[in-house]
Amino acid sequence: MHAYIGEFFGSLTLILFGDGVVANVLLQRTKGKDSGWMVIATGWGLAVMMGVFVANAMGSPGADINPAVTIAKWVMGMYVEANVVFGMIAAQMLGCFVGAICVWLAYLPHWKLTESKESKLGIFCTAPAIRHPFGNVLSEVIGTITLIVGIGAIVHSSSIAGGLLPFLVGGLVWAIGLSLGGPTGYAINPARDLGPRLAHALLPIAGKGGSDWSYAWIPILGPIIGASVGALMWTSLIPAA
Amino acid sequence: MHAYIGEFFGSLTLILFGDGVVANVLLQRTKGKDSGWMVIATGWGLAVMMGVFVANAMGSPGADINPAVTIAKWVMGMYVEANVVFGMIAAQMLGCFVGAICVWLAYLPHWKLTESKESKLGIFCTAPAIRHPFGNVLSEVIGTITLIVGIGAIVHSSSIAGGLLPFLVGGLVWAIGLSLGGPTGYAINPARDLGPRLAHALLPIAGKGGSDWSYAWIPILGPIIGASVGALMWTSLIPAA
Amino acid sequence: MHAYIGEFFGSLTLILFGDGVVANVLLQRTKGKDSGWMVIATGWGLAVMMGVFVANAMGSPGADINPAVTIAKWVMGMYVEANVVFGMIAAQMLGCFVGAICVWLAYLPHWKLTESKESKLGIFCTAPAIRHPFGNVLSEVIGTITLIVGIGAIVHSSSIAGGLLPFLVGGLVWAIGLSLGGPTGYAINPARDLGPRLAHALLPIAGKGGSDWSYAWIPILGPIIGASVGALMWTSLIPAA
Amino acid sequence: MHAYIGEFFGSLTLILFGDGVVANVLLQRTKGKDSGWMVIATGWGLAVMMGVFVANAMGSPGADINPAVTIAKWVMGMYVEANVVFGMIAAQMLGCFVGAICVWLAYLPHWKLTESKESKLGIFCTAPAIRHPFGNVLSEVIGTITLIVGIGAIVHSSSIAGGLLPFLVGGLVWAIGLSLGGPTGYAINPARDLGPRLAHALLPIAGKGGSDWSYAWIPILGPIIGASVGALMWTSLIPAA
Repeated sequence: MHAYIGEFFGSLTLILFGDGVVANVLLQRTKGKDSGWMVIATGWGLAVMMGVFVANAMGSPGADINPAVTIAKWVMGMYVEANVVFGMIAAQMLGCFVGAICVWLAYLPHWKLTESKESKLGIFCTAPAIRHPFGNVLSEVIGTITLIVGIGAIVHSSSIAGGLLPFLVGGLVWAIGLSLGGPTGYAINPARDLGPRLAHALLPIAGKGGSDWSYAWIPILGPIIGASVGALMWTSLIPAA
Repeated sequence: MHAYIGEFFGSLTLILFGDGVVANVLLQRTKGKDSGWMVIATGWGLAVMMGVFVANAMGSPGADINPAVTIAKWVMGMYVEANVVFGMIAAQMLGCFVGAICVWLAYLPHWKLTESKESKLGIFCTAPAIRHPFGNVLSEVIGTITLIVGIGAIVHSSSIAGGLLPFLVGGLVWAIGLSLGGPTGYAINPARDLGPRLAHALLPIAGKGGSDWSYAWIPILGPIIGASVGALMWTSLIPAA
Repeated sequence: MHAYIGEFFGSLTLILFGDGVVANVLLQRTKGKDSGWMVIATGWGLAVMMGVFVANAMGSPGADINPAVTIAKWVMGMYVEANVVFGMIAAQMLGCFVGAICVWLAYLPHWKLTESKESKLGIFCTAPAIRHPFGNVLSEVIGTITLIVGIGAIVHSSSIAGGLLPFLVGGLVWAIGLSLGGPTGYAINPARDLGPRLAHALLPIAGKGGSDWSYAWIPILGPIIGASVGALMWTSLIPAA
Repeated sequence: MHAYIGEFFGSLTLILFGDGVVANVLLQRTKGKDSGWMVIATGWGLAVMMGVFVANAMGSPGADINPAVTIAKWVMGMYVEANVVFGMIAAQMLGCFVGAICVWLAYLPHWKLTESKESKLGIFCTAPAIRHPFGNVLSEVIGTITLIVGIGAIVHSSSIAGGLLPFLVGGLVWAIGLSLGGPTGYAINPARDLGPRLAHALLPIAGKGGSDWSYAWIPILGPIIGASVGALMWTSLIPAA
């Protein structure tokens, strides 16, 4: 149960910072209006760092805060009970949903002043730079493999003081955002996309448009494939790990 | 007494770097003129890191440098004597006041060349992007809850070498600035706002305007509510911590 | 054999992140379009950090991921068998080649929408800001000496927890990019340039131009000279290391 | 003698990265042209980190690479022999001079294409944003006090693994650049200004102008005053340190 609380609050923190930085860049009349990709990618890297710290402190030592990570660990045999996997994913999804509500509240006066329906949706969930299902899935698969193998490699350096792992995993996600976030906005996490997309659909956001459900399967499928492939790559290449 | 000296110099350092970076971005003819939100948020993150290092070295092991943190610790039972709480807050307020004077001196030739009264005030204290008391308080509450829970989570990872805590807390404030600073400029610290606002009111700044006292209660009330809620959340969720 | 696998995947990771960030900045209609040199240099610094983590975890404790580093170690006597040196370099070259293919796939829909043949080549390999063979070689030599001496100095601080070395070496390459990357785009690594240049020549990239083979010798020769000079400087100045 | 070699190469490294990043931003047709204050301040922060690593590895455990730091330590009684102080400062000055020559070489083809004589000088040494001797000295004094007290506070946190001190001191200088670098370009180091200014005067730089000797006393006097005041503040406030 503690693990689920940790996953919930860690995922909430992830989205509060992650969707928050996009709100700061895309909404009208914020202090960070139009401050660019460096701000977004740095904000998301720190969002992961803080999400992992919070998940950890609140009772989830693994601090997955991402169904792709949970699935990868399941493929690697680190989880054995299917209901734990489902419980973790449900907690992550709910945390991302509530985190998105907090972003809506934190930026409350700004929604009505922002014309673009696309920007408002883009704060909650990902959208492809070019709509191209095969290319978009492929991009999410590559990003997620990189995430899984990267986390494995960082954790493998066992001489790191445990307390700095969240910092280094944040650095990994900073890198993924800067380098591989260009085509799809790097969901690399099904809950990060679906939870806030649901929030967008349900919240009374001033002047919102549709929630683009036709794209929603891509940031779910891509990360699940990537997590599975990444986990298999890791276990086959690091037999003694 | 040593703790008060530490809080004074730590808070002075916080404002010297924090208000300093805003001066560099907003004043006319500086080297960093118009360098944007990334510069401001990074400068404030490092300001917190250095403020905590200095407060710590000069005699305050807790290194709060923020009445919201002191109040949160008091709610958590980490301080018991009310006069210690008042002493800490007074030292923080005074340190922020003197830090703002130092920023005025460091940028001495630039004030008279800067037309905008709003920019000159904005270097000292926060101003809302959109004036909306309920939304502004809410934004400060969310930011401060995040600060308190985030510090708790970082400190909770007890395997971190103590000396890196200021670096990680700086990272947390970097994140808050990037992600949640958009609506109000993230005071999340009553002394950070009130001390420099007083300095603005009292200093002979060339061509200054009013000190916007009508807004001053928001960056005090919001962080106090946020600190109390954050502390209660932390203690109820981490019973064994 | 494990070392070669580590070098292969580490170099692949290096190019996936490194060429990836350039793709994000230069290709049309990406999320990071035109986000500037800060993004590129930060992306490459993190690319090195992650490349070293991956190389290390997958079996190469030295984690060279750069023929210049391998050659410098050979000059310093850290490798004695020539066939190990060749094997390492071959693995690095192959990893960089495959990494470039992954970048092409990750950004699949964007190539055809990008007019500039120069930009498309610039994602794969380096090009001089001003074509000036002597100056370009000199710049690569200085950059590579700095890399070799810098790595030596970081590793020499033996009190660092081993697991943070990749982070600090990433910081060194961040610095080289920001400060010395201006004239040639800082190959400082023959495999980083030649492997992806080959990939550019062979891949069916939409609307690509030539692979500028007339420049290809410079990012090979410069780093080899720099590695040799750097290694000799290091061994003569740190006799007891 | 080893300490002097360390100070020489550490100071050379400091200027190679520090003046290098300014060259990348100010010279014509570089990859980092006009990339702004974030790039410059980050480059200088990393320059200090690498300068300290190199100085340390090459034989100077204190790794001052700055006469202001050496003077502050002398005031604090950490050096007793005047000729050691002079030797350290001479090595720092020479290292900064040679480092500036290396920057000139690394950017060799770019000087002749750059019109602005002011930009070319600004790569080597500091220039005030507004010429105001009292204000400029004051700004350098405040910056240098902050440097000395900040280093003291970081080193005082003795639980930091020694190997991360250069990283944190780099963070301090990153902060000083972002926050206090606006008025004078933050010399905070007499050798950093005078050594490269001499190199500018002596090198055959294409189309160079004068070396602005009338300003040269300010980045010497300011840091010396700041170092003395900072050292006295530190010793009086931290009696038991």
